[in-house]
Formats: sequence, structure tokens, C-alpha cells
Amino acid sequence: MRPVRAIVSVSDKTGVVEFAKELSNLGVEIISTGGTARLLKEAGIPVKEISDLTGFPEIMEGRVKTLHPKVHGGILAKRDSKEHLKAMKELGIERIDMVVVNLYPFKETVAKGARLEKIIENIDIGGPTMVRAAAKNYKYVAIVTDPKDYPEIIKELKETGEISLKTRFNLARKAFNLTAHYDALISDFLYSIDENGDEIQCRELRNPLTITFEKVQDLRYGENPHQRGAFYREVFVKEPCVTRAEKLHGEKELSFNNIYDLDGALNLVLEFDPQADGIACAIIKHANPCGMALGKSVEEAYEKALKVDPVSAFGGIIAFNAKVTSEVAKLITERFYECVIAPDYDEGALEILKTKKNLRVLTTKGLEGLERKGIDSPFEYRRVVGGLLVQDRNLITVDPEKIKVVTDREPTEKEWKDLLFAFKVVKWVKSNSVVYAKDGVAVGIGVGQTSRVDSARCAAEKAKLMGLDLSGSVLASEAFFPFRDSVDEAAKVGVTAVIQPGGSIRDKEVIEAANEHGMAMVFTGIRHFRH
Amino acid sequence: MRPVRAIVSVSDKTGVVEFAKELSNLGVEIISTGGTARLLKEAGIPVKEISDLTGFPEIMEGRVKTLHPKVHGGILAKRDSKEHLKAMKELGIERIDMVVVNLYPFKETVAKGARLEKIIENIDIGGPTMVRAAAKNYKYVAIVTDPKDYPEIIKELKETGEISLKTRFNLARKAFNLTAHYDALISDFLYSIDENGDEIQCRELRNPLTITFEKVQDLRYGENPHQRGAFYREVFVKEPCVTRAEKLHGEKELSFNNIYDLDGALNLVLEFDPQADGIACAIIKHANPCGMALGKSVEEAYEKALKVDPVSAFGGIIAFNAKVTSEVAKLITERFYECVIAPDYDEGALEILKTKKNLRVLTTKGLEGLERKGIDSPFEYRRVVGGLLVQDRNLITVDPEKIKVVTDREPTEKEWKDLLFAFKVVKWVKSNSVVYAKDGVAVGIGVGQTSRVDSARCAAEKAKLMGLDLSGSVLASEAFFPFRDSVDEAAKVGVTAVIQPGGSIRDKEVIEAANEHGMAMVFTGIRHFRH
Repeated sequence: MRPVRAIVSVSDKTGVVEFAKELSNLGVEIISTGGTARLLKEAGIPVKEISDLTGFPEIMEGRVKTLHPKVHGGILAKRDSKEHLKAMKELGIERIDMVVVNLYPFKETVAKGARLEKIIENIDIGGPTMVRAAAKNYKYVAIVTDPKDYPEIIKELKETGEISLKTRFNLARKAFNLTAHYDALISDFLYSIDENGDEIQCRELRNPLTITFEKVQDLRYGENPHQRGAFYREVFVKEPCVTRAEKLHGEKELSFNNIYDLDGALNLVLEFDPQADGIACAIIKHANPCGMALGKSVEEAYEKALKVDPVSAFGGIIAFNAKVTSEVAKLITERFYECVIAPDYDEGALEILKTKKNLRVLTTKGLEGLERKGIDSPFEYRRVVGGLLVQDRNLITVDPEKIKVVTDREPTEKEWKDLLFAFKVVKWVKSNSVVYAKDGVAVGIGVGQTSRVDSARCAAEKAKLMGLDLSGSVLASEAFFPFRDSVDEAAKVGVTAVIQPGGSIRDKEVIEAANEHGMAMVFTGIRHFRH
Repeated sequence: MRPVRAIVSVSDKTGVVEFAKELSNLGVEIISTGGTARLLKEAGIPVKEISDLTGFPEIMEGRVKTLHPKVHGGILAKRDSKEHLKAMKELGIERIDMVVVNLYPFKETVAKGARLEKIIENIDIGGPTMVRAAAKNYKYVAIVTDPKDYPEIIKELKETGEISLKTRFNLARKAFNLTAHYDALISDFLYSIDENGDEIQCRELRNPLTITFEKVQDLRYGENPHQRGAFYREVFVKEPCVTRAEKLHGEKELSFNNIYDLDGALNLVLEFDPQADGIACAIIKHANPCGMALGKSVEEAYEKALKVDPVSAFGGIIAFNAKVTSEVAKLITERFYECVIAPDYDEGALEILKTKKNLRVLTTKGLEGLERKGIDSPFEYRRVVGGLLVQDRNLITVDPEKIKVVTDREPTEKEWKDLLFAFKVVKWVKSNSVVYAKDGVAVGIGVGQTSRVDSARCAAEKAKLMGLDLSGSVLASEAFFPFRDSVDEAAKVGVTAVIQPGGSIRDKEVIEAANEHGMAMVFTGIRHFRH
């Protein structure tokens, strides 16, 4: 297809003057609108106004300018249909072979925090219509939505005199990919507010559900080398998360598994407020913590976390909820880790970490608190073949006031502290999960067994192998105990207090077991399954 | 807002006659097009043709009929703007307060397997434009895209004489939700083919990425009771999967965790061809198999799988790759399970299973083989806060011809069989994962530990507790052994052969360990991380 006439009407004016000039030099007639027309005319490019084409003025502050049959007949006509050609001739419709359009900056307007009225005004109507019409008729028309494609199109036109079917098809699917993204953002925005423009707390689990992402980067591969992988982000997220974290150092790119583990690590340490709860350090391996501790300093937290399982920590991901110091940086460089993520780094710390070429150092500096604002990241997804499970994120924290003591004995103050700590940790361990904790250290982390008692047992055995003493520790379980067996196992290794949701039909039996062992047991009423 | 004029132009004509009649009786002037206009006229409803409104004929087989400033000026005008009102007056534009439009059946046309040309023709241009314009201008206009909303709108009009801002806003976001879904489907379809209409094997990891789903059902809750949850499906998936499975029995609804586990269970048994490999039974709990075996019959497979861990099996999910018989159904009803999924059921089997009120019985009957065709389900997603990790599904199977024996000793025929079996099982166990197998039974399943040797150890200890003898078993590891320790552990319990990807810098040390123990070891070159 050799274009004879193009509509050029863009919000993003990057490169459009050069592109239109080249088109014009190649003999393509340029039709344009509003600001684009002015710009091109100033550059000396011969331009026909769209209102000259339609015989209809641009009205309503530009709301209606291209929505005209002379435009859309020109785009949509099948060039090999006698009937279509007859209609064109009779109604004075001229063919339009190329549409160069990009859309009102809806995303940018929302991101700027503009007023609702201004946001609504930035919902483009005419643009997507031309884009969609031209993309539908890709058999005859080229739809150009991305300034990055301008040079290739000029090159192809110069070399072959045409735009090939292959190019037109690729442009068309890119165009529908754009309009899908555009409307998904609009839809998501409208579902984040009510009719008064006030923010909604629980976004509707709507039907259909269309979710949209921008690519951050292609990855070397997915979870495994034979799977391709890519990393995407939601458009409007501001909270501290791996998706928005900045990489300060590290030659090697983040891998699929790094990103997944960084997410888990950050979720875990962000459970703890450095002032109120203490400084937290988590070490993650294969999507589960292999070390987790609180300390008065990052060094203390790190050293305690490392002791939990220095074998697994090899090649792991470290996260902190506080600024990384030179002292801890030095300790980190003594061993092999893949990534560190933290809210900030001392200048000296960063220099030390940079001596490790492949250690990826990430910061969440400058990102807002955990409050989800505006269009954020409200849902969690679990993929199943052919579908998606969608749920609210598990953002609940247990209110200590609402925890019920169910045993004869109340926990001591020290036990209370470890119980609350352990229940926050167990939330981010894959189910069935249990956590043994002592003095703010997760001394035993029981991961992902198909039976709860196995998790309790594996963790206890592991602690023993690591030379950690569980006597005087507390035990957290992310879900209720179906039987008393786990409590009995816990008693054997010296656990003195237990925290769990409660709610089993055998709660009585479980509480009795705790009483028999002289343990304190508390019920949170909140479960934290994580698979 | 009290509507004086409505455009009614629908592909799905459900309820439109009644709705238009009510509107007309309420004094709303109806403008219509093509088939809808004929239908309404036949029903005796006064209708004005859109071409009478625009003064422009419908042309190009309906490709261009509503794309006219008299239509879109009427929809998009701000009713409180002097300038807009002036333009309306001068150009003879009449206000349109309601748009009743639904879109060409793109989805249905693709699903029918229509020719590309026909599919392209079913990309609606005029419809989405009116929908989007009316939704943008929700402050003044009602956009009705769903026949299910007709009764409520009539009710509101009759009761209050108006359509409220709240209703108009809700209709507007529903409208953009529809157009986002519509264009996401079009985009996805176009990325599934090339310019000649031929199917593409590896769909592009494109930027942006917009994915769309239909809701199957709201769930009681998500992974935990304090999280809302819903189950969604891709539109075009045909392969056997939980998303497309039919529920034959079970009063209770499937839960979030049920669906996730059913997916895992089905993925695992579908690794095995009932003829070539044997009949497979998997029992899943907390996203991991706690039992897995092959047998000559479903009974044999089930009984062997159950023996692996009858404790964990309680409340689990069972999957088969073959028809469920009355014999095995009877065995299943002797214990408590949440769900069974299988390609089919004997008539007697179904009757027996139905005696368990809450046992959910699902079938994949009628679904095609694992070949992914047309628009299917090519990607796996892992959610991270604020983003998404996207990768190809792990659909690779190891070619036995390409497996390398690396030890002095070759596996025996019996060992080969168990090695290949175990490596297929370990693919669907969460990392770090190992599987001990003997005579087609996964006698030890090591799940999700942060250190590989811990998985090997936990699984061996578990087998011992279950009274299972690992001597003469083989061991599969889903990723390479970083050290020789796991091989040494395996030797202790009597493992005679090992399968693993290989690729560690310490492969030599690991192979030496195997040789020392007189084991056979093979490298697949393929890793199966799963987190």
C-alpha cells in the first residue's frame, strides 16, 4: 500500500514535524487538526485542516472534530469493494491511507493528581475512534500510534514505496493493544472512585476484569531457563514495592526469581515499624524466609537473622526496614547474596556494597508509606490454567486488643512480644507454616508442608541442626491446629506460648494440650494462609 | 437527568423491544439504526432513523452510520456550557441523553472459529465510540450497555422521573470496563496470529500488557476469610483445566484454595498419559502433592497415593487422569476429601460420590487435549505488589533420549522408569523440591524448604514416619544439587539412582558422591523451579 493521504493528529508531538515533513516530501497529503495542524504549518509543511475535509467546524473545545463520515468513510472503506468506492464517489469521501494519532494523556493527567473534571476531559474519544477504525482496516490502512515507529515507516516507504501488509498488521495489533490499555486505565480509575470523586476503599471484583501493565523489562528468562519472562508494573502504584524500587548497583539484571523473592522479603520487613517494633532483617530463599529477626540496629538484626540458617542464606535476598549502615554492609559483603533491598543506605554502606559486582542493591527511598492511595495495587492474583483467582491483598494486622487468651495461663510480657512478632512473620511464610520465635528472632521457620505437624517438626529439627535452642521460645501457626499433635511437638522442644487463629472443631483438645504443658495460648481470629 | 432523546442500537437484542417501548411511553424520543430500527418499528415503537438525524446515509455495509458530529455533538455537549449550546443551536445538533448500545459479537465470532475476514468485520467501531463518548459525558448522559440494566433504569425513571448521577456514573464505569475488555480481546486475538492469519506459537510479551477475564463466580472469600475473592477465566480456553471443568456434584461452592489446589492436581496428573505411562492419582494439600502414584487401575493408583501420607490427605483434593470407577469411588467416600477431578466417571461412581453432600466432583470431559490452540492460555503470572511477573507456562517435558548418564553406572530399566516418573512429579512440587520414587509411587515428597538438603531430609523422615521404605528408591531434584550433601543423605536411606538437571559448579563433586555410593545419576538439562 502506497499512502496518498494521512491524518496526523497527536497529543504527544515527539518527532511529528520530521515525520510529517518526510511524508509530505514523499507526496503524502497531510490532513491535521488543532494544535498539530498549527505546529506543522509553522514548520512549513502543507497541511489541510480536517474541517476543510469534513465541511464541519471543530466544536465544543475540540470534543468533536474528527467524528465525521468523511473521515471515517475515508479510513474504513474497503478499497476493493465496488459498493464502498461508489459511496465514496457519491458522497465526496477521499481515501485516508494512514492515520498518525496518539491519545490524550489520560495516565499523565491522573498521575499529576489533577481534578476529576480535568481527568475526564483527558478521556480521548475521537483519537481512539480513528485508531480503532484504521487498525480494523489494516488491510488497506496504516495506523501509527507510536513516535518510535516513525523512522522505520519512512525507511520502508523510501525503500519500497509502500507500507507492507506485515507492517500494517503489526501496527494494527499494537494499536488495539494501546486502546485496550487506555480503556483499562480509564475503567480502573473510575472503579477507584465513587460518583462524587471520592476514593473507594474496596474496589469491586468486577465482571469482566481487565488488568493492564507497563513493561519494566524483559528478563533473561522466567522461573526456569526454558521459559521466557518479563516484568511488568501497574501504572499508578506509589507504595514501597519491588516494582517501584530503584536499583542503585549491580551489573547483573534482576531475575524472575529475584523479583519474586524481593517482593516476599519487602512484604515481610514492612510488617514492622522500625520505631515501634524494632529494626527488621529478612533473608529470603525460594520465596520463603530462611532468616528473620528484629534488632536494635541493622547489624544486630542481620546477624540474628543469619544465624537462623546460614546454609540457606547463601545466594539469598536480604531486606531491611531501616537504613543500611557501613557496618552491616561490610558483614553482607563477607558472604554471597543476590540482592539487598532497604529504604536507604549510608553513603559508606553503598560504597562497600558496590565492591560486589553482581550484588543488586535496591532502595525504596522516596516511595510513600503503605497507605494505598488513588489508583494503587489492591488485588492479589493467583494464576490457574485458563483463569485467575483474584483476592484482596492480605493487608490486615492483628489488633493486640482483640487477641483472646484461651489457656489458664496468660502469656508473660516477653512471650507477648515474641508471639506478636512470630504471627507477623508467619503471615509471609508459605502454608502450612509455623514460626518458632525467641527474643525477636524467628529461630525456627516451618515452611510449606502438607501437614501442619510436619512443618512444626521440620522447623524444630532444623533449629537443632543449626544449634539453636528452642526452649523458652513461642510458636505461631498461620492457621488453626487441626489436632493437638503440633502443640505436643512444640512442648517437647520447650515452647512456652502459642499464637494461632483458633477456630478448629478440636480447639478444646488443643487448648487442653497447652494447659497440660503449662503453655499460654492465644487466638487471633485471623488466618494467614499463603500458598 | 431526565432523558428526552435516546440512541438505541444493539447487536444483542435481548429485551430491547420492551425497554424501548417503556422509554417511548415515558416520552423519550428513540433514534435507531439498521436492524434495531426495523425491530422496534415492527413492534410499533415510534423510531427516528439515525440517517434522518444526521442527514447522511448509512454506508459501507454499516461500517459508517453513527460516526457523525450530529450524533457525537449531541452526546458530548456539556449541557451547562454556553459555547457548547451555541454550537448545537447553530449546527442543528439535538441533545442525546441516553445511549443504548452493545457491541458486535467479536468474542462469539472468534469462538465459533470464523474466518479472519469475518472476525475483522466483527470489530465494532461505531458502537464503542458511542459507548465511550456517552460514558465520558456521564455528567449529562446515561450509557446503557447491558440488557440486565434495562429494568432498573425504567424503574428509576418511573419512580423519580430521572436517572441519577450515581446511576449514570456506575453505568459509565461499566461502559469503559466493557470497551477495555472488548479491545483486550481484539488485541489478544491479533497477537495470537501473524499477518497471514496463521497461529503464532510464542505469543509476544508485549508492552503494555492488558489481560482480560470473565468472572466465573464470586467466592465465599479469598485465601483467608478477611480477603474477598473471585474466580475468573480467560475467554477462549479449551484445554482441560479447572477453569473449564464442569461441577457434577457438591452443594458447597468451590473455595479459593480448592480451585488453586485443583489446578495443581490436574497439572500433575496431566503429565501422565494413561496408556503410555499408567493411570495417575494425585492428592493435593496446600498447593503441594501429599500423595502421587501410578497404577494399572484407578483403585491401585489411589491406594498407593494415599499410603504416601494419609494424614495430610485428610481434606485434600484428588485428581485422576482416567475414568473414576465405582470401586475407587467407594474408597474415596470412606475418607474426607474436598474435591475430586477426573476426565470422566462411571455412572455408578458418580452415584457413590454423590452420597457425600459436600464433596465437589468435577469433570474435564469434553475438553480437548493439552495442545494449545487459537487464543488459549499461554502465560503464567506471579503477582508482586504493584506489578506482575509473566512467563511462558512450563509445558516442557524431558525427552528421555536427551538425558545424559553421568555416573559410572547406568540406571537399570526399573530405575529409568522411576526416574522419569519422579522428574515429572517434582515439576509440580514447590521448590526446593525432591521426590523419592519407587515402583511408580512418590514415596517421599520434599516440599518447599529453603535449602535443598532440608527437603531431602524432611521427605525421608516423613517416609519413615509413614512406615515407607526408601531403600531401592530413586530421587528426583527439580534443580541441581549445589553440594553433595543431598546425595549423601539419599544414600543413607537407600536411594540407588538420581535424576536432576545438572549445571552446578560442583557437579563433579556431586557425581563423585553418586559414584562412591554406587548410584546411577542422570542429568536432564532442564530445571523445574516452581514457587
